[in-house]
Amino acid sequence: MNLERAAAFIQSHQFFYLAAHQSPDGDTLGSCLALREALLLLGKDAAVVCPDRVPPVLDFLAGADTVTGTDGIEPPKEAVLYIDCADHKRTGALRETLETAPYQFCIDHHGTNPRESKDGDWVEEVSATGELILRLIKALNVPMNKTIATALYTAITTDTGNFSYGNTSPESFEAAAKLLGYGIDLPELNRVLFREMPVSKAKLIAYTLSHMELFEGGRLNLCAIPLDALAACSATKEDCEGLIDWLRDIDTVEAACVLRESDGCVRVSMRSKRYCDVAAIAKRFGGGGHVRAAGCTLYLPLEEATAVMREALTEALQ
Amino acid sequence: MNLERAAAFIQSHQFFYLAAHQSPDGDTLGSCLALREALLLLGKDAAVVCPDRVPPVLDFLAGADTVTGTDGIEPPKEAVLYIDCADHKRTGALRETLETAPYQFCIDHHGTNPRESKDGDWVEEVSATGELILRLIKALNVPMNKTIATALYTAITTDTGNFSYGNTSPESFEAAAKLLGYGIDLPELNRVLFREMPVSKAKLIAYTLSHMELFEGGRLNLCAIPLDALAACSATKEDCEGLIDWLRDIDTVEAACVLRESDGCVRVSMRSKRYCDVAAIAKRFGGGGHVRAAGCTLYLPLEEATAVMREALTEALQ
Repeated sequence: MNLERAAAFIQSHQFFYLAAHQSPDGDTLGSCLALREALLLLGKDAAVVCPDRVPPVLDFLAGADTVTGTDGIEPPKEAVLYIDCADHKRTGALRETLETAPYQFCIDHHGTNPRESKDGDWVEEVSATGELILRLIKALNVPMNKTIATALYTAITTDTGNFSYGNTSPESFEAAAKLLGYGIDLPELNRVLFREMPVSKAKLIAYTLSHMELFEGGRLNLCAIPLDALAACSATKEDCEGLIDWLRDIDTVEAACVLRESDGCVRVSMRSKRYCDVAAIAKRFGGGGHVRAAGCTLYLPLEEATAVMREALTEALQ
Repeated sequence: MNLERAAAFIQSHQFFYLAAHQSPDGDTLGSCLALREALLLLGKDAAVVCPDRVPPVLDFLAGADTVTGTDGIEPPKEAVLYIDCADHKRTGALRETLETAPYQFCIDHHGTNPRESKDGDWVEEVSATGELILRLIKALNVPMNKTIATALYTAITTDTGNFSYGNTSPESFEAAAKLLGYGIDLPELNRVLFREMPVSKAKLIAYTLSHMELFEGGRLNLCAIPLDALAACSATKEDCEGLIDWLRDIDTVEAACVLRESDGCVRVSMRSKRYCDVAAIAKRFGGGGHVRAAGCTLYLPLEEATAVMREALTEALQ
């Protein structure tokens, strides 16, 4: 049992760095902060480290303000636990420092994990690393509390798209059932994680939905976003995430495409619902991805890029 | 045990009408259609009846095309089961016909249910009536299948706002865990239930987000929608549902207000997040609702109505 090895690793050490991956998400930070709380309750010394800053949407997590970045990090005294890191590279600028630790163990749910941590690993392909941390905390006999439950619920709900992605399993729901009993404020948590947005993002969604163009009897949905529109919305890179989903979600649409003008190029995102292979199209233009979600970069003016993608997608829909 | 009485009621009859409530939602229709499938598997005769048509978003439910409305309904031969109906009135135009049934029983989760069905009722305040039907189907020893699981999952996820409302309980998640094991296509189901929308709705959201106005340092968010804007979007009444949530979801906002011009009046919806009592404001203008969600109707031109609501809300935010 890898769970037992993880528990034994924790029991045999006192000082821990819990390493979150770069571009941190709800699963890596929720898992790290839940485990930190549990280790503190066990009388151990634990600090969460992450090469990038905590995104504002996750600021509410208890202990988020204690997460240490590259500035002023001390070399690890004893043990490093890589949490939700698909490999050590995912610790970015912290990698070299972390790999000097005398003891290193990894807990992760990515099937591709190379299992490179020198004292072992627990890799199991569940919906979220948060599910593994829940089992670990139970194995360590730490009493569950609202802080831990909220952090682990955040881990699981963000990695499953609030229980909507294909990775959602009966165990994801069972974990949620257990955690909800500890006083999580579910309406507030859902609002913060999935609904609240800055004005800039709302304006960008409005732009996208007013400028989208439907072709092929509504099966193709395209929107080109020029630099000046992004500037007019004061849109950040984060605001652009998920825009493509809005285009795909129009009921008649099979394939959707967002073309975002950038410095000297156009970033193209594509999505499809049931039959259109957008990965094949992305590949033709030097990009890649999955059959239902892919992207590429075109070094063309926005208008030309739009015409090129429209033609390729129209052809694919025949 | 009311569950046992419900099971006994079903076992002692052969012909059933399963009555869904007017303005049918995912819980009443999902529960009725799941129970219909189970009764058919038991060799019984069951038909779902509903005074209003099945909304397009729920058309995908197996058996949705068999739901009978007021046209051509035969008088009930034997038993009526009121499902998710807070009272008999909720069966609208079918009420008189249904109340002629020799045997009548009610299964519902609304605490206010007057328990008026003559052969008894099973009223329990769980998150969704679908949770009760899941228990009932198990008690009847009907083997679970994908059709029943999809209908019951739809019932629970729609009544809990995909597990985000305050009524969501550990039991809601446990029910989901059980049902997911029977082959539900979770990504597709979530897209259909919560994301897909017609172009008209997307255009109306775009209008709202581009015309919203923030006041009081971003705490108040107001949008007035004139009749000609609704016409330009070809917006239906259904498209207007949920618009107010978009305004509330801006991160700085405490109180949000949508003013929708109608024939000779203005429909006002208000929402708040943490401290503003919008019910008190609605009441002042002859409306009502809850502290965090309320509404009223003003018989004023749109511009004047907007000024009036802005003033009232600004005052409430002091």
